[in-house]
Amino acid sequence: MCEANAYLIKESGEEELVFENVDRVLPGEEGIMMEDIFGKRKLLRARIKEMALVDHKIILEAL
Amino acid sequence: MCEANAYLIKESGEEELVFENVDRVLPGEEGIMMEDIFGKRKLLRARIKEMALVDHKIILEAL
Repeated sequence: MCEANAYLIKESGEEELVFENVDRVLPGEEGIMMEDIFGKRKLLRARIKEMALVDHKIILEAL
Repeated sequence: MCEANAYLIKESGEEELVFENVDRVLPGEEGIMMEDIFGKRKLLRARIKEMALVDHKIILEAL
């Protein structure tokens, strides 16, 4: 399976794991809606900084 | 490997395949920079509409 983990970059530059097993990513005006492989959703006030699919990583930065 | 294919939604609603084997996705002011698993890059004046990682799909819409 090709789900990814989502990390939020903190001001210190550290990456904090915020959501695991992400399948769907839907950017919107409110932020990023993510849905995991079990159908659980999470909305974060953030935008995508970078995705590295082969590494299963989504890097987010706060809005 | 968990690379994905990128599709651009046309006005007709049809999805046009624009880039294959995408590994990295970097949204920026100019649009979306994508890098495939071979290191080839493509910049598109578009934004991410939706990603479906388990289906290996990146759906873009033109800016």
